[in-house]
Amino acid sequence: MNRRTAALIALATPWLATEALAQEWASRPDEIALLAYPEMTALDLVGPQYMFGLLVGAKVHIVAKSLDPVLCDTGITILPTATFASCPARLTVLFVPGGTGAIAPMHDPQTLAFVADRGSRAKYVTSVCTGALILAAAGLLRGYRATTHWSVLDALARFGAQPVHERVVVDRNRITGGGVTAGIDFGLAMIAMLRDDFYAQSAQLLAEYNPHPPFDAGSPQTAPPAVTAKVRAMLAPFINQAH
Amino acid sequence: MNRRTAALIALATPWLATEALAQEWASRPDEIALLAYPEMTALDLVGPQYMFGLLVGAKVHIVAKSLDPVLCDTGITILPTATFASCPARLTVLFVPGGTGAIAPMHDPQTLAFVADRGSRAKYVTSVCTGALILAAAGLLRGYRATTHWSVLDALARFGAQPVHERVVVDRNRITGGGVTAGIDFGLAMIAMLRDDFYAQSAQLLAEYNPHPPFDAGSPQTAPPAVTAKVRAMLAPFINQAH
Repeated sequence: MNRRTAALIALATPWLATEALAQEWASRPDEIALLAYPEMTALDLVGPQYMFGLLVGAKVHIVAKSLDPVLCDTGITILPTATFASCPARLTVLFVPGGTGAIAPMHDPQTLAFVADRGSRAKYVTSVCTGALILAAAGLLRGYRATTHWSVLDALARFGAQPVHERVVVDRNRITGGGVTAGIDFGLAMIAMLRDDFYAQSAQLLAEYNPHPPFDAGSPQTAPPAVTAKVRAMLAPFINQAH
Repeated sequence: MNRRTAALIALATPWLATEALAQEWASRPDEIALLAYPEMTALDLVGPQYMFGLLVGAKVHIVAKSLDPVLCDTGITILPTATFASCPARLTVLFVPGGTGAIAPMHDPQTLAFVADRGSRAKYVTSVCTGALILAAAGLLRGYRATTHWSVLDALARFGAQPVHERVVVDRNRITGGGVTAGIDFGLAMIAMLRDDFYAQSAQLLAEYNPHPPFDAGSPQTAPPAVTAKVRAMLAPFINQAH
């Protein structure tokens, strides 16, 4: 379960890194921790995890309260690889995904303590979707520009953050992505920061990230108004709890 | 583990379906089977799984040879919910993801028998990325237009399929998507087919699928030539085995 050599990295070494670079990275690996919690959205985590998973010289940990399987909000179950206790203390990246279940961690002292502690030392403090609300509740976005899922963007303000409607927002070492699928754009931006543009472009080509959405409904600015109204109504219980 | 009510569906009912429609769908649920196998690419599966997971009145099964955890090629582990034996015989959708590990199932009699059997009766026979090679090896793409990851597109021809370089290819009931991230476009197209455009647009807005790739490197036609050459070289062992 804790086998650390991913097949894609095995394939990528030494193609995306020279042998010397790969050895240098392996000698001081980036420790990357992705938080997992019940009823998170799997796609929020798996988009970035794909990108981080391509980094030669990185150790990617999926960190939860315990090693118990985590049931995500669309019904898929993933396995953590580390606990709050076993997660490395010094991280290159702390990443928090969003999900229907993001409200509970915002009020859970143990989760907030973990996020605040690792976030205080991490080189990059990051999120996708409503994961930003968890970072914010842990006090990590006070005074920072940040984004989250469009439906709860204004909720960031009550935690002292400045809400910004952009796909990926970079403010010093806080990097936050918009809703769900923004994790792919976020992940590519992170590869460019952690390695270089060439590496990120290679990851984009490997992922064939050449999007062609069948509709222009991906933002409340472009979706048919009836669609936006319906989704906002559907999310009302979540939106109310986030405020 | 087999809890079948996903939080997002609970939230979506009855917002995306009228009460009457939701009851009708629940009375004859769509059975949707997503194949899982070692060293598949998690993102290939989780993009479509997000979309299928939003379908009120659908049962989404993650089907593998056994219920053992499946380690994906980027290092994340997911849990199947059904086996080849317990998977429903009549499916609305059979879906096959791709991955670095896609070669082994192409030569595994048990997997090919399962795919050919369910595919012979499924209303839709579908794939993303190199999952198309598995469908093809099971004889399900003979005489069909289809697509797969750009790096192995021409390999479809040796199974009697007609390779097409498009994001999502629909030929009668065969629906195939391009590499990895094409699963999101594919999933939205499937929602539109299984429900309607309004439902699919709502899913797109919920997923905030408003892509802004940081580079224009998502296809070999647009990526810098040095990037395409590097990724093609990196994939050479896989490409060779696929042919």
